Amino acid sequence: MSKSGREEDVGSSSSQSMVEKTLEVAKASVFGERKEKEMKKETRLGISAKKDEDFPSWYSQVCRFGELITLSDTKGLYILEPSATKIWNTLRSYMDAELEKLGGVEEKKFPMLIKRDSLEKEKDHIEGFKPEVAWVTRAGEHDLPTPYALRPTSETIIYPYFKNRIRTHRDLPMKVNQWVNVVRWEVSDPIPLIRGREFDWQEGHSAFATKEEADEEVLEVLNIYSRVYEDLLAVPVIKGRKSDKEKFAGADYTTSAEAFIPTTGRGVQAATSHCLGQNFAKMFEIAFEDKEVKRDKKGKIIKPLVWQNSWGVSTRSIGVMAMTHGDDKGLVLPPKVARYQVVVVPVPFKGADTKRISQECQAVKTTLQGAGVRAIVDERDNYACGWKYADWEMKGVPLRIELGPRDLEKNQVRVVRRDTRVKMDVLRVDLVEKVKDLLEVIQRDLYDDAKRKLEESIQKVETWDEFKEALRQKKLVLAPWCDEVEVENDVKENSKGENEAGAKTLCTPFEQPELREDTLCFASGKPAKKWTYWGRSY
Amino acid sequence: MSKSGREEDVGSSSSQSMVEKTLEVAKASVFGERKEKEMKKETRLGISAKKDEDFPSWYSQVCRFGELITLSDTKGLYILEPSATKIWNTLRSYMDAELEKLGGVEEKKFPMLIKRDSLEKEKDHIEGFKPEVAWVTRAGEHDLPTPYALRPTSETIIYPYFKNRIRTHRDLPMKVNQWVNVVRWEVSDPIPLIRGREFDWQEGHSAFATKEEADEEVLEVLNIYSRVYEDLLAVPVIKGRKSDKEKFAGADYTTSAEAFIPTTGRGVQAATSHCLGQNFAKMFEIAFEDKEVKRDKKGKIIKPLVWQNSWGVSTRSIGVMAMTHGDDKGLVLPPKVARYQVVVVPVPFKGADTKRISQECQAVKTTLQGAGVRAIVDERDNYACGWKYADWEMKGVPLRIELGPRDLEKNQVRVVRRDTRVKMDVLRVDLVEKVKDLLEVIQRDLYDDAKRKLEESIQKVETWDEFKEALRQKKLVLAPWCDEVEVENDVKENSKGENEAGAKTLCTPFEQPELREDTLCFASGKPAKKWTYWGRSY
Repeated sequence: MSKSGREEDVGSSSSQSMVEKTLEVAKASVFGERKEKEMKKETRLGISAKKDEDFPSWYSQVCRFGELITLSDTKGLYILEPSATKIWNTLRSYMDAELEKLGGVEEKKFPMLIKRDSLEKEKDHIEGFKPEVAWVTRAGEHDLPTPYALRPTSETIIYPYFKNRIRTHRDLPMKVNQWVNVVRWEVSDPIPLIRGREFDWQEGHSAFATKEEADEEVLEVLNIYSRVYEDLLAVPVIKGRKSDKEKFAGADYTTSAEAFIPTTGRGVQAATSHCLGQNFAKMFEIAFEDKEVKRDKKGKIIKPLVWQNSWGVSTRSIGVMAMTHGDDKGLVLPPKVARYQVVVVPVPFKGADTKRISQECQAVKTTLQGAGVRAIVDERDNYACGWKYADWEMKGVPLRIELGPRDLEKNQVRVVRRDTRVKMDVLRVDLVEKVKDLLEVIQRDLYDDAKRKLEESIQKVETWDEFKEALRQKKLVLAPWCDEVEVENDVKENSKGENEAGAKTLCTPFEQPELREDTLCFASGKPAKKWTYWGRSY
Repeated sequence: MSKSGREEDVGSSSSQSMVEKTLEVAKASVFGERKEKEMKKETRLGISAKKDEDFPSWYSQVCRFGELITLSDTKGLYILEPSATKIWNTLRSYMDAELEKLGGVEEKKFPMLIKRDSLEKEKDHIEGFKPEVAWVTRAGEHDLPTPYALRPTSETIIYPYFKNRIRTHRDLPMKVNQWVNVVRWEVSDPIPLIRGREFDWQEGHSAFATKEEADEEVLEVLNIYSRVYEDLLAVPVIKGRKSDKEKFAGADYTTSAEAFIPTTGRGVQAATSHCLGQNFAKMFEIAFEDKEVKRDKKGKIIKPLVWQNSWGVSTRSIGVMAMTHGDDKGLVLPPKVARYQVVVVPVPFKGADTKRISQECQAVKTTLQGAGVRAIVDERDNYACGWKYADWEMKGVPLRIELGPRDLEKNQVRVVRRDTRVKMDVLRVDLVEKVKDLLEVIQRDLYDDAKRKLEESIQKVETWDEFKEALRQKKLVLAPWCDEVEVENDVKENSKGENEAGAKTLCTPFEQPELREDTLCFASGKPAKKWTYWGRSY
């Protein structure tokens, strides 16, 4: 089968596909936040924006035309499509197995409505969340006696439960996890999957007798998150600790896995694992009778407060994955999380035995499914195959198999990788082995490629000028810092660009380069205490 | 090992267990809706209420002490415990596989917030739900320009999406399913799992080109629900059609699976599958271009409206299961959905080799787990085994294995069924086979027993006097009916008891007894059109 034959094929379908695609696009953008603008701009074949030129439009198109999400009638509220629910369900199974290994984590489910008094109990916590809390104030025709918050996170509804359940050291550690939706009525511009007003996440909450156990779990969970990103989503992350300014509202300290988008030069907080210390324990009175009972002067048992953690990862992970791997053709899905790993497209040339080709496509699918590969056949008879190729590329399916009369003759199929678009002929007898092999290779290549780009993005700087220049070049900046919040505030203010927020600390990586004794803070000139990642962020 | 030995064992632990259980109970009821009353009443060993004597208290205790749920600080909002999330996850996997077989159902996820205008579009629908809708009116410090409803069900947020996605016959059928939480701010008395203000469910929504396809799917889905109840939860159900008075707000007709609780003589709607006809299609303008295009006089394409269904099953199923199988000792879990199917309890007699017994218990657990049985060992050293027996009975674990020194000698274990409390000695070599066999037998026996009780409860009547007497005897009443809503209203009014709601139609079963031509309605004396189940209900 000649290359030109295939290209002709694409050509012959282009007038039809233009019309169809126009319809598709019109359809997809009816619920548009930027309706008119997009209706005009996007009546073209597939993704019109370029990743390098107009990242925000590109990303929005990839999410929508790649069928991860659909916009709803309200800004910041998104509909998850089957490709996204598949990723989320895969991530959930993986996490559940990892938490099982961690030991003692029980899956529970708490109400999503939090009484105002509870929410406001921990002062730093409510200060952090107040601006984005949605309030239920009425039911039916009546005002409620007390308003309820829709959980922005569940510390304040889970910890009264902890207070009641934890009596003695035997009840510790207590670890619960729930898979739920949360609401944060963000005022700033929402971004599909990355920053929405409602999103799904997993949130874990634990209580320990000692600080050491809590500290240890914080890192164990962060490692699980890191594996979720790296092993499943093929997205490399940097593990580290947030600054006091950037930590979770109410936490002693926050650790995070940070991803980085080289195209925009922006960091993105991928998952967080917080040590809450005894802050919530104090406010919610979560204390326990220790193994060796101690008493005060009056003989009353002294009950120590528990040490607590909370940790979460959300559907934002899907957005980070799309930003990382997507290209100008659309979404690129890592095989491990792809709803369909292989799409089989019949290529019926003029005069060919269409029925037999269709049968063979089904046979290929069945063989692959039998080997545990998620495969489908695209049997739509109202689209030419060129249109179908573009459609499945947009949706990010890792492998495409083309099967036409000449493939039949030679007992082979044409296999095309989504990531590299490399084509190869594979004998039918080798198909299962080759496909399974390729899926593994793609998974690894996606990670390696992203990892290489991440590493190339990292720029070590020691002065303010170097810092500014690195930021301008969209680098992930690693700089020596004096660890003072005033400096963070100054840097943010002084690095603001036109329409661009200033840079902030992303994390202080656990893997620290050597810090010479006389190293000065890049921004304040005071003695530096650590190397910290800085950048604009999502 | 003598019977008395084991009983002595129970006896020896009773003083400790009394104290401990008092603590447990106090703990469990701190969040009490009926706090004081229960605190006083329940400071006894385990479940104090009798199923036959005080069903509401019994059920509440079974749910809480059996660790399905914990009460929250708000009436009608419950915390699901791991036993309940396990059942729900099992049901979800089962349903997902069944929907996969049904074909074409895609898992999506829609926002939980519905704009007021959308919710109010279908008039019957909003009339039905208005009294129980919770409204979000504020975010942060600001009033929202338009209030949002927390979804009581998602027709009105999914159908605008259908309108945009459905263009031609090629887009049909469209079937989506989502696993989400919903809120119905019930004013009447909440009952754990059965009637709460927030609950989890699965809701499916589909659109078809023809009424016939919609009608067919309604029943296919109802059959899946019936299997969920009968095969997983071991709860027999009756399939039938709801009366117009009792159908879903906005539906053409509703089919349901109905369960029955013989102890209280009350029916409970277990799952529903609705044909919405074209009611929502009309209001949301969901129309499509048909295969054979028809045009009106002006040449404009006539687009037919789609036919729609919606269907759902909720965590209420867990409550129905608990009501059906539970006894005065507590919860009884069907093996297929039990978080733990087997609990192994070491029985360390005085002077016994405690360490070896513990090792053997672990070995038994490992063997069972290797065979795919969900087993644990209760190694708690602060409870005597009698206390443990009662504790696991309360939690409903299907099989208990006791292992003491004499069992070790004889290379056997003592196996005790939760449902019948029958005890047997099983040789270690036969253990896996016997346990797997017993789990199957228990699953079947639970169903058979419930089925027998259901059948014994059914009472056919033909007159008002017979009807009243059957109701008094807590029967599930099957009566010939003229199918008039006025009669339903009259029956409800005239069958009210002291503190008891009147009887209503539960469903008209698909399996109809023969209706003699001259049969009259039991209530109106008019010619009867069908046999219908009547009863008080949850």
